[in-house]
Amino acid sequence: MEFRRITFTIGVLLCGLAMAMLLPASIDLIDSNLDWQVFAFASGATFFVGSLLSLTAPLDAVSMEVGVREGFLLTTLTWIIISAFSALPFVGLGIGYSDAYFEAMSGLTTTGATVLVQLDHLPRGILLWRSILQGLGGLGIIVTAIVMLPFLRVGGMQLFQTESSERSEKTFPRAAQLISATAGIYGLLIVACAITYAVLGMTSFDAFCHALTTLSTGGFSTHDKSFGFFQSTSLEWVSILFMVLGSLPFVVMIKSLNGGPTVLWKDEQVRGLVILLVTVSLLLAIWLTLTRGTPFLEAILSSTFNVVSVVSTTGYVIEDYTLWGSFAIGMFFLLTFIGGCAGSTSGGMKIYRLQIAKSLVGDHFERLVSPHRVLTLRYNGRRLPADVPFSVIVFLAIYMASIGIFTVLLSVLGLDLVTSLSSAATSLGNVGPGLGDIVGPAGNFSTLPNSAKWVLSMAMLLGRLELFTVLVLSRPEFWQA
Amino acid sequence: MEFRRITFTIGVLLCGLAMAMLLPASIDLIDSNLDWQVFAFASGATFFVGSLLSLTAPLDAVSMEVGVREGFLLTTLTWIIISAFSALPFVGLGIGYSDAYFEAMSGLTTTGATVLVQLDHLPRGILLWRSILQGLGGLGIIVTAIVMLPFLRVGGMQLFQTESSERSEKTFPRAAQLISATAGIYGLLIVACAITYAVLGMTSFDAFCHALTTLSTGGFSTHDKSFGFFQSTSLEWVSILFMVLGSLPFVVMIKSLNGGPTVLWKDEQVRGLVILLVTVSLLLAIWLTLTRGTPFLEAILSSTFNVVSVVSTTGYVIEDYTLWGSFAIGMFFLLTFIGGCAGSTSGGMKIYRLQIAKSLVGDHFERLVSPHRVLTLRYNGRRLPADVPFSVIVFLAIYMASIGIFTVLLSVLGLDLVTSLSSAATSLGNVGPGLGDIVGPAGNFSTLPNSAKWVLSMAMLLGRLELFTVLVLSRPEFWQA
Repeated sequence: MEFRRITFTIGVLLCGLAMAMLLPASIDLIDSNLDWQVFAFASGATFFVGSLLSLTAPLDAVSMEVGVREGFLLTTLTWIIISAFSALPFVGLGIGYSDAYFEAMSGLTTTGATVLVQLDHLPRGILLWRSILQGLGGLGIIVTAIVMLPFLRVGGMQLFQTESSERSEKTFPRAAQLISATAGIYGLLIVACAITYAVLGMTSFDAFCHALTTLSTGGFSTHDKSFGFFQSTSLEWVSILFMVLGSLPFVVMIKSLNGGPTVLWKDEQVRGLVILLVTVSLLLAIWLTLTRGTPFLEAILSSTFNVVSVVSTTGYVIEDYTLWGSFAIGMFFLLTFIGGCAGSTSGGMKIYRLQIAKSLVGDHFERLVSPHRVLTLRYNGRRLPADVPFSVIVFLAIYMASIGIFTVLLSVLGLDLVTSLSSAATSLGNVGPGLGDIVGPAGNFSTLPNSAKWVLSMAMLLGRLELFTVLVLSRPEFWQA
Repeated sequence: MEFRRITFTIGVLLCGLAMAMLLPASIDLIDSNLDWQVFAFASGATFFVGSLLSLTAPLDAVSMEVGVREGFLLTTLTWIIISAFSALPFVGLGIGYSDAYFEAMSGLTTTGATVLVQLDHLPRGILLWRSILQGLGGLGIIVTAIVMLPFLRVGGMQLFQTESSERSEKTFPRAAQLISATAGIYGLLIVACAITYAVLGMTSFDAFCHALTTLSTGGFSTHDKSFGFFQSTSLEWVSILFMVLGSLPFVVMIKSLNGGPTVLWKDEQVRGLVILLVTVSLLLAIWLTLTRGTPFLEAILSSTFNVVSVVSTTGYVIEDYTLWGSFAIGMFFLLTFIGGCAGSTSGGMKIYRLQIAKSLVGDHFERLVSPHRVLTLRYNGRRLPADVPFSVIVFLAIYMASIGIFTVLLSVLGLDLVTSLSSAATSLGNVGPGLGDIVGPAGNFSTLPNSAKWVLSMAMLLGRLELFTVLVLSRPEFWQA
């Protein structure tokens, strides 16, 4: 294994992170808030370490060649180390390191669970920093999902192999091109979202911060009441639109720039997500109308916003939907697992895995009845590669097993069952809010013990990197090979 | 499909059930309790329908030839219809049909969840009937698991194919021999358990009833306080022993009659179960000693009894372990999923599936690191048949998905999250007690709405017949083929 390629890449990324820290430094300087020094100092420290790491690597490491095992290690280490440095400004502002690391990991994994309280009274620098973390994390995961995960064949992601992610242990041709296109469309969507938010009444600061956390399906807000602060029907509909856009596969979006919107609708994943969102939102709206007498138009906005917020794994809250009754609670618990499309900023199990699992189960039943039948499984009009079905099902099984293990770990630390189960699910799915008084939509993760915050940070990392990328490092054979 | 073979078999089984109903009739007659008429009438009605069904079938249906599709239908219909008739005595005693069907299904699936209260004041006839249902259900599932499920290739059960369960669409040679041996050893263990219970202080009635529900890992008791009624250390240790015996694979037990106890220990499933039970019991005992100051010897009995009761899916309760704190709750929640060995009376996911899943995951990780490696997976010293790994993993995924779906269904019916989630898990796993005030170890299923009782009856059936046997009937291709 060539560790210098790993240190080089992480070094370069740290230098980029250091640059990003200058943004909150600037806004605090404009606001005459002395916190700018914290950001400036953190930026300096991060840049120092980053440049050391990248400079110690020899020039030939720059070729971007990377092997499979290096890929796993690089991806996991990147998220752990970038989080560690992203936490520095929080520490500088007097937040304990457990809280700071949790907040940074929650930001970069675009989970959106927060341990900070009284957001409305915090200086703009720190609020901007949280939003930037989600913006960067969102871009990071799209690039990882397009370039790295298919190459590592993680949990069925080999299905999304493009020319730039072939497992040839060679360089990534055209990767740079694809990354630029992705970053371009991601940036444009953020700008479009920010402008619309501002036009519809947000301050330009709120608009920018929320645009970053909408498209990254992150869900950090600048207000304790989250998106509910704005109390604006039009803002909520706009947010629904951009949360959905953030959970669509970016490669398909790039293609639709030439092929038009029908390209999007022809994609099985996109269609599955939209049908799911519409169905569940309608069901919940009808439930709200029938059981609580909410006018249907009001109910459909409420249900759509919350369903899209959870399924896209954004985690914005406009009201405490756990007060909607047992059906809503059960439904939102289940929705926490699902997630958006692969190659987007959203987390969860991902739509394509559930679709493939559905056809695998159908196929399995057919074979139980007629054992000698041979069926060809297809997805998105193409034959499924031979190793995809098993990878997908193993992923789903490990996903659910992980939630079980995290639930027990958290219950050892003293959390009640609903809190430990739902916080495990919401962290692994990178959603944000869980259920119950503590981690529910009306709660806050700040009162959890520090140990639980570390466990949940680990869960966020695992979920974000599709489990296997991290878990494989714990296998002896990884280090022996 | 030859429906007459199905009706013949069910008819014969109903006649047997009618005979069994004469036992509680006799005991009520001895007690001069007029309830004997209810049992006698139910017996007559059941025998009438049973003999009609078996006599209308032509003689050639008696040959016991059965096809795959007939096998699925026969197995599922048997459990549904036998439960319907087993519920008759409860109805005759003034219990509503929803409650009666729930109790009968809970008995025959050896789940052990009950809707009856004030058991201590009930006449002996009905108490005996509940125990007999579990005794019969236990034998029924062992025979099904040895003869039918491997033949149907359900969820990896093809691993346990013997000469008597080959998928040849032919007759079952030697099936009768294996069934007799199983019934013999099962009956002997029940007698041995009953005698030991009686010697250690139970009344002979209690001893017989509890022996039936111990070996069937069912868990119905004749007392509201369940096994806690007896307050006897020695009875609890004996119960632990026989619950474990009930969750061992009966085919291996038969083999060990010749080969000695090392045959048992050499079996990977048996070893896995014992190691699991010892480890978790020790962990919980240490937890109890450290957090609650319970003397270690007392703690080890408490923890072992409850762990064995849940993992063997018996469901006896000696105390409310949900008062042991969050770790115990989380742990017992997880244990609800596991279950005992295949080919025993216990439910859950089964030890062998978890063991196979573990090696599959290990294998998957190795391949992620070294894609071109070819590994041969083995279980119990033999190569895994080609279709077992996928069947096992699909089973686990559907098992967990089913719990999710049942949870939402139950929450629609108004149950809170802990109740709906844990009752779904405990019913699907055929365990018995769930978590929370209502369905927890100190609670009772009687206060649930009738609709929830039907949903849970369905969950018990699904879990008992290893999901696929029932689910396959809902597929259009089953009826088209």
